Amino acid sequence: MEERNNEKRNVGVVGATGYTGIELVRLLVQHPDISLKIVTSRSNQGERYSSLYPSFDGIFDEELQSVEALSDADLDLVFLALPHRVSMDFVKEYGLEKFRIVDLSGDFRLKSAETYETWYEKEHSCPDYIYSAAYGLPELNRDKIRNADLVANPGCYPTASILALAPLIDRGLIRPDSIVVDSKSGVTGAGSTPKETTHFPNLFGNFFAYGLMRHRHTPEMEQMLGRLSDEEIRIQFTPHLLPIDRGILSTTYSQPVRDTSAEEVRELYLSYYEKEYFVRVVDTPPTVKNVRGSNFCDLYATYDERTGRVITIGVIDNLVKGAAGQAVQNMNLMFRLIEKSGLEHPPLNP
Amino acid sequence: MEERNNEKRNVGVVGATGYTGIELVRLLVQHPDISLKIVTSRSNQGERYSSLYPSFDGIFDEELQSVEALSDADLDLVFLALPHRVSMDFVKEYGLEKFRIVDLSGDFRLKSAETYETWYEKEHSCPDYIYSAAYGLPELNRDKIRNADLVANPGCYPTASILALAPLIDRGLIRPDSIVVDSKSGVTGAGSTPKETTHFPNLFGNFFAYGLMRHRHTPEMEQMLGRLSDEEIRIQFTPHLLPIDRGILSTTYSQPVRDTSAEEVRELYLSYYEKEYFVRVVDTPPTVKNVRGSNFCDLYATYDERTGRVITIGVIDNLVKGAAGQAVQNMNLMFRLIEKSGLEHPPLNP
Amino acid sequence: MEERNNEKRNVGVVGATGYTGIELVRLLVQHPDISLKIVTSRSNQGERYSSLYPSFDGIFDEELQSVEALSDADLDLVFLALPHRVSMDFVKEYGLEKFRIVDLSGDFRLKSAETYETWYEKEHSCPDYIYSAAYGLPELNRDKIRNADLVANPGCYPTASILALAPLIDRGLIRPDSIVVDSKSGVTGAGSTPKETTHFPNLFGNFFAYGLMRHRHTPEMEQMLGRLSDEEIRIQFTPHLLPIDRGILSTTYSQPVRDTSAEEVRELYLSYYEKEYFVRVVDTPPTVKNVRGSNFCDLYATYDERTGRVITIGVIDNLVKGAAGQAVQNMNLMFRLIEKSGLEHPPLNP
Amino acid sequence: MEERNNEKRNVGVVGATGYTGIELVRLLVQHPDISLKIVTSRSNQGERYSSLYPSFDGIFDEELQSVEALSDADLDLVFLALPHRVSMDFVKEYGLEKFRIVDLSGDFRLKSAETYETWYEKEHSCPDYIYSAAYGLPELNRDKIRNADLVANPGCYPTASILALAPLIDRGLIRPDSIVVDSKSGVTGAGSTPKETTHFPNLFGNFFAYGLMRHRHTPEMEQMLGRLSDEEIRIQFTPHLLPIDRGILSTTYSQPVRDTSAEEVRELYLSYYEKEYFVRVVDTPPTVKNVRGSNFCDLYATYDERTGRVITIGVIDNLVKGAAGQAVQNMNLMFRLIEKSGLEHPPLNP
Repeated sequence: MEERNNEKRNVGVVGATGYTGIELVRLLVQHPDISLKIVTSRSNQGERYSSLYPSFDGIFDEELQSVEALSDADLDLVFLALPHRVSMDFVKEYGLEKFRIVDLSGDFRLKSAETYETWYEKEHSCPDYIYSAAYGLPELNRDKIRNADLVANPGCYPTASILALAPLIDRGLIRPDSIVVDSKSGVTGAGSTPKETTHFPNLFGNFFAYGLMRHRHTPEMEQMLGRLSDEEIRIQFTPHLLPIDRGILSTTYSQPVRDTSAEEVRELYLSYYEKEYFVRVVDTPPTVKNVRGSNFCDLYATYDERTGRVITIGVIDNLVKGAAGQAVQNMNLMFRLIEKSGLEHPPLNP
Repeated sequence: MEERNNEKRNVGVVGATGYTGIELVRLLVQHPDISLKIVTSRSNQGERYSSLYPSFDGIFDEELQSVEALSDADLDLVFLALPHRVSMDFVKEYGLEKFRIVDLSGDFRLKSAETYETWYEKEHSCPDYIYSAAYGLPELNRDKIRNADLVANPGCYPTASILALAPLIDRGLIRPDSIVVDSKSGVTGAGSTPKETTHFPNLFGNFFAYGLMRHRHTPEMEQMLGRLSDEEIRIQFTPHLLPIDRGILSTTYSQPVRDTSAEEVRELYLSYYEKEYFVRVVDTPPTVKNVRGSNFCDLYATYDERTGRVITIGVIDNLVKGAAGQAVQNMNLMFRLIEKSGLEHPPLNP
Repeated sequence: MEERNNEKRNVGVVGATGYTGIELVRLLVQHPDISLKIVTSRSNQGERYSSLYPSFDGIFDEELQSVEALSDADLDLVFLALPHRVSMDFVKEYGLEKFRIVDLSGDFRLKSAETYETWYEKEHSCPDYIYSAAYGLPELNRDKIRNADLVANPGCYPTASILALAPLIDRGLIRPDSIVVDSKSGVTGAGSTPKETTHFPNLFGNFFAYGLMRHRHTPEMEQMLGRLSDEEIRIQFTPHLLPIDRGILSTTYSQPVRDTSAEEVRELYLSYYEKEYFVRVVDTPPTVKNVRGSNFCDLYATYDERTGRVITIGVIDNLVKGAAGQAVQNMNLMFRLIEKSGLEHPPLNP
Repeated sequence: MEERNNEKRNVGVVGATGYTGIELVRLLVQHPDISLKIVTSRSNQGERYSSLYPSFDGIFDEELQSVEALSDADLDLVFLALPHRVSMDFVKEYGLEKFRIVDLSGDFRLKSAETYETWYEKEHSCPDYIYSAAYGLPELNRDKIRNADLVANPGCYPTASILALAPLIDRGLIRPDSIVVDSKSGVTGAGSTPKETTHFPNLFGNFFAYGLMRHRHTPEMEQMLGRLSDEEIRIQFTPHLLPIDRGILSTTYSQPVRDTSAEEVRELYLSYYEKEYFVRVVDTPPTVKNVRGSNFCDLYATYDERTGRVITIGVIDNLVKGAAGQAVQNMNLMFRLIEKSGLEHPPLNP
């Protein structure tokens, strides 16, 4: 069913000057089946991409354009690397006729306009598109993604956490109200805008929790995991900020509904993800550096007989499997390309 | 009852070349009521302290001595900054007649030789002393410490975690089998011996969990918190290694036995620690850098109505309140000095 | 000549919310001879200091006041931790009658209004005070500082670099046009205002030079070292930004005017700084962590016979000896207190 | 002249468990024209590569073999990622008949056995091969590399420093005795063996110089730059250890023999490296993160009119252009492949 197409597909990146935009450019310029036709930016249009980001000198020297230039660009697909709330206005204006869209914001992830408005504190500007959008987690939603014109690329925390919990919930092994997700993220997850908490001297040698009880990724996890269960899922989610640039680690705790064992839990994960190239079930607790720069999600799962709890740990690079890499994986599916095309680079470790 | 003594007390540090030993020297040389008479080291005896640790140049230039020199030193108290298993042999040999002892190892923390042997995988060499040793967490055990000749200084994780949970358990607010402690520690907690996992390039930009389900600090937390409860406490404890030098943050999750509120939980913590100088109950999730280099433990406590869980967060400097600072605090109590004497330096932040 | 005064002196900190202001508060609250009467801030007046900086919770809980409140505060001395160009306007307005001033900005360091205007690109608003200001590097200017009403506290780079070069120039050992100073600074030196270059993800794992050929600390070094020489000093100064919070290391290269040896150079430094408590001449290249949080400057000096160059290396904590600590040292001199009073804390290492 | 070959070449990596060995594997498994047939290790033979380095799980799962297995492997080329002094014994034993060799150690870099013995403190075991070895810096030695059977891959510091100085020396613009090279390297450059200085807590937040006046990369720079000059080159080289994992930055200072200007210097660099894909002459001082994970060397060059000095700055990733990437570039030349084949991945930034 998958094929490598000789003719390259044309794509664009809207909002190419945030961290996820830059990471998209990094992945797309080395993708064998893709031609990156246009990158846009509101604030930096007219500037050469590599003069803003000298990493790309000699690699991608195109000028940033205004978003209006999209219309003439004859694109097959557009990545939206825009802030929450800006994305939905773009989709409302441009629709899905001219090009398909992978949206990296949170605007089309939640399947209810009400839930969106509760957690994002804004009315949704185009609720109709919510229902047609596919949630872009390929390991759990591959078929819908293939046929979608609008893919809502998952959040970074939900990617690591949903993959770390899906087998347990899908098989009904754990109590749906027993789940604690304690997550730790590198600072690129907080975006490229300088703020006091992410000013280098304030964060260096530091560590703290934030967004307790009300982080927007909570309903996203509950919704997607809820689809795998007959019961409503309630997740206790606590994010923390790690003083590193890239990487997310989620530690999950939950209680089984029946007797189980470390071996059974491990076997469940191995079989559940057997055919998934990007999910690696590992023997020992994984480290975030084992996936740095790559699209892998490494998972560890075990059971503590003493306490009667299942513990799982998932790690990703928040900018790759947690954002741009997963977006490319979704694009590969939408174009019926080989799913791992352009995403086979080994992690950068050490 | 407390007094500042004009005459300085004489103390020694045995094992002064590990990280906790170095930190003890740092605190003791600036303590107004103490004279640091002797520092010992098996491997470096005869060397000038400041030639090994140039930070101390001009501050503490004494020579390291052999442990045998203790006998002639006329000491009031000795700090043992020795590895687990070595400490108990020292106590067995020297007894408690010549000087009182604050032991920073794990050898006298567990109140049962059997539990010790289960978790430390070695027979205890002097079980009699176990029962006379006072667990050195002043906020919960002040009276016993004052009168003890042998104080077992708590582990770093237990200090942060016990302080973060004690009010809930002492007041019977939470289910004793519902506790999850997800902890993150700086690398000084792993000791001063170079290893592969703590080799700089391997840990830089990295983060991972370790010691799942079987870390030795687990029974220590369960024992001390168990004393505050009628029921047995079962703790799910997961430590992680943070790529920073100093600091521990423990995030705890537990379920109340009855209806409660964020306000009630917060008030409980404020009143419980009202008279404690070194425990600061804060309004927003604390950061490890807010206590760097100091003996403070900053605590945050709240309740999530949506999920029905109590969440608390505690931060300490693992080398100060988690080791050397707490040892000095214990010594102050044993000598009936002002409890915060020599420990009033503000944190080093930024 | 020095005495410890029973009566505490009253001081204030103007601009207490920048990094040097915070560090002044940290040092002053534990100074045995000083009472910190008032801290001011334009943007945060009315806020409790410890609610802005929770490190100070229980240690310094006073409210920030407006600068106007200084007039009623009955102060002996005021520290100005203000930006360049703002300081001189303060001095112009308040004069030196009500209180003595230690100014931590660059406004009174250069002895010529023209040089100031060349490098700071602004007309000097009160050139008369330039001439009365004492350059606050105690090791080289102790007598003037003692009697000054206005002390210009040196820049962080000049402190490390001047101390690392003074013996060579003072003794006429090197050619005054042969000096290269290659410096590396932690990020607190760049101030507390978030910027793109100091946004955590941009600087993490990164390193670069900046301000080549035109950094304002250049004329400051040349002027102060010039006073020790009959000839004009020309310094090639290149600062770099280190991905750490605190610490400066300056490596200097210069050519001797005559035959010398590593031993002679080392002896020169040992004798030159023999009586200086805060300058430690060390045997091996010093590390910035050996002085973290302290007022020490560690110096290493040698001669390369193969190439015929003198190499010296100086390290300081840029916020202590490079700013607030040196300001306190100056204050001690001005008050005829013991020079190291309140500055005896050992470095925080590890 | 260059061609892309349809038939893949077979290569092996000897010593695949050090940092440069791991990096070679990372680059070779994604090289389109190469088949990595064998990886060897003395201490870990028989172990699956990805069980030792889980980053490679699913990417390279082969077993490490003993070096004896090389003989049957039918290889076109072998990379030696062995320690200094071990490499030359390998070459002595295996010769160059069965396969060509790229040696990443220092054993064949210096063109005189005497110089080798002076700086490496060991007799050279096969001096004959020294003369046939090509110094593997493609930008300056491309033709010899193409035809060599033994390539001595340059050191990390020399790569950055020679490229940063070559245009000045080649054109005779600077005095050959005026050169200072102040370098700063990430910790992977110090190897994968845990030591006290590279133990995480000791290096975190730290920075220092080491190897002053006697680092082995000094004669390597002098020799290679000497080939571009009629005069003997004397370099003052000072390395420093940066608390990051990857990256080298070299700042060079030198004095011109005649009047020049910033513009002339810049133009010289632009024209000198015009045709070099991997050398990027940039407008502003480069950062090490701009080349992280890539084979680029970014260079900045200017002239300070005030002081009369030329300043240049070069950055590389020490494990890529400073080791494994340059080795692959050399291999590409030896196989007459496209020089940048397998090396086109953009830097990982942020």
